[in-house]
Amino acid sequence: MGRGFDVVAICSTTGARAGLLRTRHGPIETPTFMPVGTQGTVKGLTPGDLHLLGAQCVLGNAYHLWLQPGHAVVRGAGGLHAFTSWDGPILTDSGGFQVLSLADLRRIDERGVTFRSHLNGEERPFTPELAMEVQAALGSDIAMVLDLCPPYPSMHSDLQEATERTTRWARRARVASRASGQMVFGIVQGGTDVVLRRWSAESLSELDFDGYGIGGLSVGEERERTWAALNASLGALPPDRPRYLMGVGAPADLLAGIARGIDLFDCVMPTRLGRNGAVFTPFGRLNLRNAAVAGRDGPLDPSCACPACVGFSSAYLHHLVRAREELGLRLASMHNLSVLMQLARDAREAIISGTFGDFVAEALEIWGRPEQA
Amino acid sequence: MGRGFDVVAICSTTGARAGLLRTRHGPIETPTFMPVGTQGTVKGLTPGDLHLLGAQCVLGNAYHLWLQPGHAVVRGAGGLHAFTSWDGPILTDSGGFQVLSLADLRRIDERGVTFRSHLNGEERPFTPELAMEVQAALGSDIAMVLDLCPPYPSMHSDLQEATERTTRWARRARVASRASGQMVFGIVQGGTDVVLRRWSAESLSELDFDGYGIGGLSVGEERERTWAALNASLGALPPDRPRYLMGVGAPADLLAGIARGIDLFDCVMPTRLGRNGAVFTPFGRLNLRNAAVAGRDGPLDPSCACPACVGFSSAYLHHLVRAREELGLRLASMHNLSVLMQLARDAREAIISGTFGDFVAEALEIWGRPEQA
Repeated sequence: MGRGFDVVAICSTTGARAGLLRTRHGPIETPTFMPVGTQGTVKGLTPGDLHLLGAQCVLGNAYHLWLQPGHAVVRGAGGLHAFTSWDGPILTDSGGFQVLSLADLRRIDERGVTFRSHLNGEERPFTPELAMEVQAALGSDIAMVLDLCPPYPSMHSDLQEATERTTRWARRARVASRASGQMVFGIVQGGTDVVLRRWSAESLSELDFDGYGIGGLSVGEERERTWAALNASLGALPPDRPRYLMGVGAPADLLAGIARGIDLFDCVMPTRLGRNGAVFTPFGRLNLRNAAVAGRDGPLDPSCACPACVGFSSAYLHHLVRAREELGLRLASMHNLSVLMQLARDAREAIISGTFGDFVAEALEIWGRPEQA
Repeated sequence: MGRGFDVVAICSTTGARAGLLRTRHGPIETPTFMPVGTQGTVKGLTPGDLHLLGAQCVLGNAYHLWLQPGHAVVRGAGGLHAFTSWDGPILTDSGGFQVLSLADLRRIDERGVTFRSHLNGEERPFTPELAMEVQAALGSDIAMVLDLCPPYPSMHSDLQEATERTTRWARRARVASRASGQMVFGIVQGGTDVVLRRWSAESLSELDFDGYGIGGLSVGEERERTWAALNASLGALPPDRPRYLMGVGAPADLLAGIARGIDLFDCVMPTRLGRNGAVFTPFGRLNLRNAAVAGRDGPLDPSCACPACVGFSSAYLHHLVRAREELGLRLASMHNLSVLMQLARDAREAIISGTFGDFVAEALEIWGRPEQA
C-alpha cells in the first residue's frame, strides 16, 4: 500500500470529506481527532488504553522531546514508536506553538528561535532545520515544519512579518532531510487576517507539502474570526492533500471544522478538562465535582462506549474526583477523548452515506451550535 | 461451595502454609498480597488493571468511606463491589489504624473513638458497633473489628490498656450484626510485648472469629521485635483460621511472614513507592529517576510479567518519571504490586510442591535477608 491521501467521499452541500491517509504505521481514516502526547505519553494512558478508545494517530512534540529526554535518546531506543510502545501512526508537532506559549522564554530572528529551557534555563537555538532533524530522529510518520505562531491580537506588521517568515522557514524545512517514508506538512499562519491567510496558504501550496496544518487559531479570537480565517486558508490549499486544524477540539468546533473540510484535529482540551474533573456530555459540559452528580447511579452518558461510561457510575466518578483520586481524572480524560473520536467517526460514516447535512445539524443541536462565519 | 478456610499444604520445616479462603465473591488462594484501595480505588488502577495483575482481594477502609462518600451512598449504589466495579473479594479495614495515623485528630474513651474529620473538622464518634455497621453497609467479604493501634514506643501501661480495650471492643463487634455471608476478623495487638501479644491472641481466640489480623507491627520498631511479637501472636491463634499480617509488605518481610504461617498481607508501600518513582527489583530497590536508568533499553526485570516490564523499557519509565508524567507512576505502582503478588504465588506453589525451604532461602538472597528473630 503506497503512502498518500485519498478523499473517499465529499458532502456536496458542506464540503466535509472522508479520507484515507496512509502512513508507514497504518492507515488513518479521516476525519479524526488525535490525542496529544506531548512528552511521549498521552497523560496517564497506556498505548493499550489508546487502542481501546480507537485512537488512530497520536501526537508527540519535537520541542519537548528535544529537551527531554533528547532526540538522540529516542533515536537510540529505535524511534518514538519503539520508545513509547505505540505502534500506530504518530504525528509530531515542531515546537512552533511553544514559540507562542513560552513567549517569555525565547528570542526570534531569521535563523530560528532561541529558547531558554524551561527545565534548566540553558539557552538553545532551535531552527527550521533542527526541527526537521529532531523529527527525523523521532521517526514520526508525519512531521510539521517549524512555524511562527503570533499571539492574538497582534499588530498587522507583526502578523505579516511572522507569516512571511513562516513561509521562508517552510522553504528551508522542505529541503531538509527526513526519515524514510516520513510525510512533512507545512503550516498556514496569518492570524485572523484573511488576506495574509490566503497568501500563506498559496505560498505554502507552491512548496508541495504532503499535507497542511492550519495553525494560530483558537488562541483567544472570537469564533467568527476563527471560521473566516479558516475559510480563507482552506480556499487556497490543494484539495488532494490532508488538512489539519491544529489545537482545536471542543465538540462543536470539531463539527464546524469537519463541515469546512478539515481532516485532522488535535487539542489538549479533552485531557486537560478531564484532569480537572470536567467532562463533555450531550447535556453540556459537566464538572464531576458538582454535588448533583453524587446521586447518579447510571453512567455519564448511556450512549457512550468509553471505559468510564461502560465500567462505572457517575456517582463513583464524582466520589473519585472529590477524593482527589487519580483514577477519576484518568477516566474523565478517557471519556472526553472518546467523545471527540466517536464524533469524528460518526461524521465520517455520515459523509460516506451521504447524510452529513442532517448529521451535523443534529449533532450541533446536541454539542452546542458555535457562531458561524 | 461453603465459606471458610482450608489449609491445603504446610511446610514441615518452617510452618509456611498454602490455603484456600472461600468468600461470597470467590476463593482466595493464600498466601497472597492484597492491594490497598483505601477510598474505594487502588490509586490510579481500574478493576481491569487489578485483574490483569492477578489481584485476588482488594482492601477498602471503613473509616475513610464512612467520611467520604458515606456508607449510605455506597449501600445505595448496591455496596462497595457495585460502587467500585470490583467483582472479586473485598476486605475492609475498620479504621483502627487511623487511630494511630490520625493521632492528632481523635479522642479515645471506652465507648469508642471521636475523630475530628480531616475533611471538614466536624467531630464524629466512631465505635466498635458503628465500624461493623459501616462494613455491613459496604458489604465487604471480610470485615475487621475496630482496634486500638498504639504508637511505637509506648509505655507498658498504655500498651496494656490499649490491648485490653481492643479485646473488649472485639467482644462488642463480635455480637454486632453483619452483612449476609460476611466474615469478621479480630485483630491481635500488644505492641512489641510478647506477653501482651500472647494474651491478646488468646483472648480473641476465645471469641471465635472467622480469622485474625495481627496489627500494630511495622510501625517503626526494629524487625527483630516485629518477628518476636508476630511469633508470640501466632503461637496463640487457632491454626485452622486465616491469619492476616496487617500493613507489612516489603518483599523480604512478605517472605518472612509467609515462613511464619501468615496467609494474608496488605501494605500501601508498593503503590506509595511507585508513586514516588521507586520500584522493587531483584537487584535492590531502584529509583527510576536515577540517571543510570536512562540508557537501559531492556525491561526493569526481564523475568517479570507485569504490564510495565512486558510493555516498556526502563529508559522510557525513567523518562516518564523525570517528566513528571502520571503514566510512569502508575506503571511503577503496577510493577511493585505485581512483584509482591507474584512472590506470594511462587511461595504458594513451593509450599504445595514441598520445596518451600529451598525457595525461601533463594528468594531471601534475592529480595534481601531480613533480621531473623
